[in-house]
Amino acid sequence: MEDRAILERLETIAGPRNVTMHADDLAPWLSDWRGRITGRAIALVSPETAEQVQAIVRLAGETGLAIVPQGGNTGMVAGGIPRPDDRAILLSLRKMNMIRSIDPDDNSITVEAGAVLSVVHQAAEEHGRRFPLSLGSKDSATIGGLIATNAGGTQVLRFGSMRALTLGIEAVLPDGSLFEGLSTLRKDNRGYDIRQLLAGSEGTLGVITAASLELVPAAPHRVVAWLGLGSARGALAMLRRLEGVLGDAVESFELVPDTALALVLEHIPDTRAPLAGGHPWHALVELRTANDPEEMRKYCEDVLAKALDDGLIADAVLAESEGQAAAFWKLREVISEAERADGMAAKHDVSVPVSAMPEFIETAREAVEARFAGARVIAFGHLGDGNVHFNVRAPAGSDDRAWFAQTGDAVSRFVHDMTRDAGGSLSAEHGIGQLKLAEFGRLADPVRLATMRAIKQALDPLGIMNPGKLVPLANPPKNP
Amino acid sequence: MEDRAILERLETIAGPRNVTMHADDLAPWLSDWRGRITGRAIALVSPETAEQVQAIVRLAGETGLAIVPQGGNTGMVAGGIPRPDDRAILLSLRKMNMIRSIDPDDNSITVEAGAVLSVVHQAAEEHGRRFPLSLGSKDSATIGGLIATNAGGTQVLRFGSMRALTLGIEAVLPDGSLFEGLSTLRKDNRGYDIRQLLAGSEGTLGVITAASLELVPAAPHRVVAWLGLGSARGALAMLRRLEGVLGDAVESFELVPDTALALVLEHIPDTRAPLAGGHPWHALVELRTANDPEEMRKYCEDVLAKALDDGLIADAVLAESEGQAAAFWKLREVISEAERADGMAAKHDVSVPVSAMPEFIETAREAVEARFAGARVIAFGHLGDGNVHFNVRAPAGSDDRAWFAQTGDAVSRFVHDMTRDAGGSLSAEHGIGQLKLAEFGRLADPVRLATMRAIKQALDPLGIMNPGKLVPLANPPKNP
Repeated sequence: MEDRAILERLETIAGPRNVTMHADDLAPWLSDWRGRITGRAIALVSPETAEQVQAIVRLAGETGLAIVPQGGNTGMVAGGIPRPDDRAILLSLRKMNMIRSIDPDDNSITVEAGAVLSVVHQAAEEHGRRFPLSLGSKDSATIGGLIATNAGGTQVLRFGSMRALTLGIEAVLPDGSLFEGLSTLRKDNRGYDIRQLLAGSEGTLGVITAASLELVPAAPHRVVAWLGLGSARGALAMLRRLEGVLGDAVESFELVPDTALALVLEHIPDTRAPLAGGHPWHALVELRTANDPEEMRKYCEDVLAKALDDGLIADAVLAESEGQAAAFWKLREVISEAERADGMAAKHDVSVPVSAMPEFIETAREAVEARFAGARVIAFGHLGDGNVHFNVRAPAGSDDRAWFAQTGDAVSRFVHDMTRDAGGSLSAEHGIGQLKLAEFGRLADPVRLATMRAIKQALDPLGIMNPGKLVPLANPPKNP
Repeated sequence: MEDRAILERLETIAGPRNVTMHADDLAPWLSDWRGRITGRAIALVSPETAEQVQAIVRLAGETGLAIVPQGGNTGMVAGGIPRPDDRAILLSLRKMNMIRSIDPDDNSITVEAGAVLSVVHQAAEEHGRRFPLSLGSKDSATIGGLIATNAGGTQVLRFGSMRALTLGIEAVLPDGSLFEGLSTLRKDNRGYDIRQLLAGSEGTLGVITAASLELVPAAPHRVVAWLGLGSARGALAMLRRLEGVLGDAVESFELVPDTALALVLEHIPDTRAPLAGGHPWHALVELRTANDPEEMRKYCEDVLAKALDDGLIADAVLAESEGQAAAFWKLREVISEAERADGMAAKHDVSVPVSAMPEFIETAREAVEARFAGARVIAFGHLGDGNVHFNVRAPAGSDDRAWFAQTGDAVSRFVHDMTRDAGGSLSAEHGIGQLKLAEFGRLADPVRLATMRAIKQALDPLGIMNPGKLVPLANPPKNP
């Protein structure tokens, strides 16, 4: 079918105002937000109902077009960007953004896929509840995209990733049928968990159109601490001690190397080190409660005092105000910005078992710096869930761009190989998308790949759903 | 292949001591523990390694035999029992029961599928941790079976079902390949979540041979309360108040109607009512902490006092000792036993949204008692997760057996229809197995069924893995 005829069909389905082929309208959504990948699409369609999504998917099936679902376009692996050689419909879910219902007694909320994360936060708060997942892009990331990529963030230690908070999913499957899996049931043993199959499937098995999410009680009070440590290993022992006493109040435990803090202090205005002395490692801890925060603070102080006595930590300070707590968090949140200000970095979002993380950070850093002369590693992340942001910068004084063009891929393969050897994952929370597809294909267990391909083939035999993402081809094309 | 030849192949694979065809050896494992279903098998094989399981599955593929995996044979829906007309190998995982590793720093344990739940509890405790899922059959239920059926229990409110606690799975897939998914990673976004597909698949997609499980910090102190309430609706409000103040300390909230308590007091020796007066509803609450239990007790007392003042509850008592706490729990745990002593009951393990549960219990009871003259309903369960054990007894003084033979199926269809209408599930925690297969097929959304069948066909094209369980056939055989 010709592009013009497809446009007419799409306009009939979704209404003329929800379809465009204009290059200017399409451009902002055809490149990922970091500007690394640019694709091509015949049209951008923004349906308003699940029925419209069904009709669009059926049209794609008839005509052999690819469907590329897109939420807030905040992904890190270009999973929502069509490939340059696709004949694709870019399917934006952003107009499907209603909050369908919220039930505080049920601790649940049901929203359309295009609802923005911060809007969901706000709705939960208005009902005395929390939606306990947050991340930097919360003002544009959509619920559908967050589920499709099983997004993480800083509270995974306590509440799990997006899949753990997803109670039910409504989705259009590749044959155009509607999977009506919206539900807030906490217990439901009716067969295969299709919800968990769709979560993290990056749009390759269907288009998520709505979801039911778990809410938790509000916990308005927090205690935020900044710790100075001699080693990453000590940080893990500290985390376990805090959990032993304060249990689930421990919601975040972020590990920051002194090199990262130094970059922040150098490049970001209005930042200062929370502790007077220098320490090789720092940890940012957040505790939350619905109760008297003074009591929690007291417990925390006791644990920290004992850890100081025992030499487990070198120093610690509790934020004295919300302003100071926010200032501590800012130091963690601007690390990437400080890195960017300092130069390019090859970034790796890897995970290893929590108990292996302290050693991994040290040995992997040493190994990279030994293998690639002059390379500078900054590794930080969520200690509680083993997620390491492992960033490698070019040698000081070198031509960044030239160094990465020559060495970048080798660095990434080296980091991923070490991660695999440590029993880890080359994608902790960002997914596979386009950018990690080759590396995933290179390193994945063949049985896992064969199983994924069998599922993909069974549910999407025409291969129309977000092709070229997540699932490596069985026989990748050889160089001609 | 003849039975004798199959036996020889099995003996070569697993060793003669791990294979038997003797009727006496087989009998205990060919009926479910409630004695409702009896099947047939050519042989009982008890492999000791995953490699042996692989060879057995390959043999089944060659010869067209069915593989029926079995753990502790404690299931409620005969999912681990072959059908009478199957040519089946009964594959017991009970000899694969090693604890492979435990890592308290990682809050994880890795065990073979045949490890018994209470052994895992014990191992975790020895390392200062908890495995926070428990149920009545904990001394014989195995980890593999618990994962394959996504088992629940009384702590789901706080920690989720088995799938939420399963970090990684090793399984033999229907083609005999080994899915090496053992992992304790908390974040891993490498493609479809095959682990969650296997969890709850009741052996129809593969044989789970080992698993990595999440542990949580020990919380040795508990406060147990018994509440008297005027309505089930009040119980839900009470639960949300407790959570608002005590957050995750609330680990169990069990709802008990006075009719159930009365049966217990009548039939079970050494039981007494915790409260002096009569109340239509009771709730059993358990709070846990690693900290000073006196403080938690104080908070709990404050919340309860206020709820008394507000008329939300009618009475309350906190257990004064571990002995009294155990006595309170016993009242809940022996309800089924008391029912059995009183006569037969048609049992339904259903779930509805938590906020709909109080109303559902009342209206469904009234509807059943109106529709089936004289029938007596006892509905109790886990309020925090919407799980209702909805049991219907024959009219007082009637011939139980005759009444159920005539009316039982109609009662169950009626209860399941009401559950569906309330947005609920006909299987909250027991699964589908053989016993609920027809009802599941009758009530399930066709898109869900079609998706399940496509996945089953893709991964088990020969249909050898636990046939006749969980997945309703596309075209059920008509009556001849």
